[in-house]
Amino acid sequence: MKADIIITHAFVLTMEGKGVGMVENGAVAIMGNTILDVGRTDEILASYKTDRIVDGNGKLVMPGLIDAHIHTGMSIFRGMAQDMSNWMQKGLWPLMKNAKADEVFHGSLVNIIEGIKAGTTTFCDYDLSMNHIVENYVQVGARARVTEMVNELPDDIGNLPIGELYPFDPSIGERKLKENIQLFEQWHGRENGRITCLFGPQGADMMGRELLLEIKALAEKYDTKIHMHMAQGEREMDQMLKRYGKRSIPFLDEIGYLDSRLLAVHLTEASKAETELVAKRGASLIYCAGSISIIDGLVPPILDFLEAGGQAGLGSDQAPGNNCSNMFNEMKLAALFNKVKRADPRVFPAWLSLRLATIESAKAIGLDHEIGSLKKGKKADILIINLQEPGLSPIFTHPIRNLVPNLVYSARGHEVETVIIDGRVIMEDRKLLTVDEKQAIINAQEAANRISQRSQKDITASDSDVYKMMEEGFL
Amino acid sequence: MKADIIITHAFVLTMEGKGVGMVENGAVAIMGNTILDVGRTDEILASYKTDRIVDGNGKLVMPGLIDAHIHTGMSIFRGMAQDMSNWMQKGLWPLMKNAKADEVFHGSLVNIIEGIKAGTTTFCDYDLSMNHIVENYVQVGARARVTEMVNELPDDIGNLPIGELYPFDPSIGERKLKENIQLFEQWHGRENGRITCLFGPQGADMMGRELLLEIKALAEKYDTKIHMHMAQGEREMDQMLKRYGKRSIPFLDEIGYLDSRLLAVHLTEASKAETELVAKRGASLIYCAGSISIIDGLVPPILDFLEAGGQAGLGSDQAPGNNCSNMFNEMKLAALFNKVKRADPRVFPAWLSLRLATIESAKAIGLDHEIGSLKKGKKADILIINLQEPGLSPIFTHPIRNLVPNLVYSARGHEVETVIIDGRVIMEDRKLLTVDEKQAIINAQEAANRISQRSQKDITASDSDVYKMMEEGFL
Repeated sequence: MKADIIITHAFVLTMEGKGVGMVENGAVAIMGNTILDVGRTDEILASYKTDRIVDGNGKLVMPGLIDAHIHTGMSIFRGMAQDMSNWMQKGLWPLMKNAKADEVFHGSLVNIIEGIKAGTTTFCDYDLSMNHIVENYVQVGARARVTEMVNELPDDIGNLPIGELYPFDPSIGERKLKENIQLFEQWHGRENGRITCLFGPQGADMMGRELLLEIKALAEKYDTKIHMHMAQGEREMDQMLKRYGKRSIPFLDEIGYLDSRLLAVHLTEASKAETELVAKRGASLIYCAGSISIIDGLVPPILDFLEAGGQAGLGSDQAPGNNCSNMFNEMKLAALFNKVKRADPRVFPAWLSLRLATIESAKAIGLDHEIGSLKKGKKADILIINLQEPGLSPIFTHPIRNLVPNLVYSARGHEVETVIIDGRVIMEDRKLLTVDEKQAIINAQEAANRISQRSQKDITASDSDVYKMMEEGFL
Repeated sequence: MKADIIITHAFVLTMEGKGVGMVENGAVAIMGNTILDVGRTDEILASYKTDRIVDGNGKLVMPGLIDAHIHTGMSIFRGMAQDMSNWMQKGLWPLMKNAKADEVFHGSLVNIIEGIKAGTTTFCDYDLSMNHIVENYVQVGARARVTEMVNELPDDIGNLPIGELYPFDPSIGERKLKENIQLFEQWHGRENGRITCLFGPQGADMMGRELLLEIKALAEKYDTKIHMHMAQGEREMDQMLKRYGKRSIPFLDEIGYLDSRLLAVHLTEASKAETELVAKRGASLIYCAGSISIIDGLVPPILDFLEAGGQAGLGSDQAPGNNCSNMFNEMKLAALFNKVKRADPRVFPAWLSLRLATIESAKAIGLDHEIGSLKKGKKADILIINLQEPGLSPIFTHPIRNLVPNLVYSARGHEVETVIIDGRVIMEDRKLLTVDEKQAIINAQEAANRISQRSQKDITASDSDVYKMMEEGFL
């Protein structure tokens, strides 16, 4: 049988089974957008012929990484809202209110490029103006599971005094929900199935009960998942208690939101009992280690969630705070923060982080039938990683292999040499083949220059910690 | 006046003053191994002529990073001792006891290359067989402040039952101290002053009081500093209590060890009062964020130390646990761990991490008269960083700059394009000019293969957590 590509003589991490599924001197055969077979090089070469052999000697082949929660539309504001209190209102809002959809779009493309260059092949993107942003994924050729973010908040939410109940405007909710439905109808299953769509309520505190229930019914009608921030901060809890006399998770449980259709993001403020309830109900948790540590100084209860049998994945969240979208960063931070939280170096071993960024994230977002591991019949979303890098050298194989800890604790992302998505080579020798990286950076810079011009007055008036740092020579 | 090199039109972070000393559209003029001048591009070009202009447009110029505590000799064991208990005895020792000095030497070179490619220009290296390792610094052209690690422990310390008092062997101590003296006499001030030497007791628990005092007297005689692990673990405290009835810090204070000559590394187990005492006595603290989180699951008390007015710096420690030597990793982790420790996103801002890896580390190790900031008359240890990278885009300058947070929270190390050490271009366009990187990796791999062969039996017998993971398919 003939294959389009066979990668040979590599360390292959299939991520199948309960561990990492390592095959030494392994090979992967690809046909079209599908993995034809995975196994030892001699076996694969005996079974398949090809005109295109990729020599994987000294390299590691693994499934593409999955960023299970990202707002690429916010990346145009990268580096503008960390080391401060009220990051959203004082850091981001003065910029957001002055940004236009096409500017956000240019930022998104740079963020996607950043992710791909660090091995992300699937982006679970959750943002405003997703109907526009989705075109970046079409252009780049990445896999995307996209959601239009829905709320009932007036556009100037950034200016509301803290502590008061948010004023909901149902007409805003209906307009945004329409955009989510339109996204679904126009894009779900497009690009050979690379693009799929979810529904995206922004948070239980940002819309009324009716709209939440309407979205739940739509997710059932379209048979898809719901991507939603949950228990993401004190402010959310305050809103929920004032509005319903209940915290988010009990409230959502009561209205039937906690089930396997739900992708619950953050759980930063969830109690142990609430965390366990979410796990027990079958909802997934997406843990954003970097972002939540920078913007909140906290470590969400992912270990409690996993110990309760929950299904979790990892996400990079947003660039203004985090400030990067690099799943190698998330894998390392996830492991280290939890070791520190439990004061135990044994918890959250490297293999767990690696699983959470691949097969477990695939399960969490509902794409494990297609991606997340290297397995006959799955989509060919594959990374080739150069192991001949100082940070990954030397390699030990017997009687202990050091590849997995070095991937998680030492690799920085630039070791990813080749990225294949849906059987197509998107990056080769670190050069993106589907998009002009330099031009994308120029476009984002020009967009940032315009936003900067427009938002000077609002930033100056914000009196944020970051603005003070600027005045005092710390930036 | 004529300069050898002038870098123009860059964002220049001088790290002078209390902040980051940013000069927009800045320039740096270099003559020989010295910084001739730093300022605005128009000013510098009006004052100096040169045959070699380096266009810094779209780039950032800053002082080389300082790794204030590293054991490059341990990097041959990279990735072999994390996610486990008893990392030193069960993870490392089975390998260390089977490694030869020339193998350790090959590993060290790869570790130094890793550091330089991520912007480290000064290595405060503390290890066994430093008389050999120091030659790597000569070859590469890096700045090094080196120490031979001294203890009185028999070579098979890794096999001692935990809980018993270490048996000291004064003849071992004398031999190792002789090697430290030899290192000093042969190397201190060599290579145009790039190589300087310290004295290196391994820990208060690893030698008797006499040897500690002998080393102290030698440091005074040679007018240099002492590089020493301090309060690095429960085992150290247990030894000190059993031997002297005192914890390390009160004991060391009593024998006059705590002063400005001391580089105290870790303080992992120091109480708040002990931490404050070390700060008050004028000793420096070197904080190794990545390593201590992985091997111990802890965050040392650097914030308490800084708040007590202490002088601190950052280090990458060792590659078997950490698993990398990349100061961008350390800067980010230092900030994030402390935000989490205090549950406050405002603490440990990006600028603090950047200072700690440059000018503050220079002060901590006693080289701030030569390095750590870009200032007329200091040594030309300089990085040129490419800002046209997706993870560093876009750039905002007014009214807030995002460069410093993006350097600390987003840069991964590969953005460093050019490294100049002592006025000499060591790396250009990411290519090392003084050493064959590929050959260094091959040599380290061959050394690792030999160590692996020899240590199979000891690793199998170690019954470590990592060995179990291997057996169960997690590595």
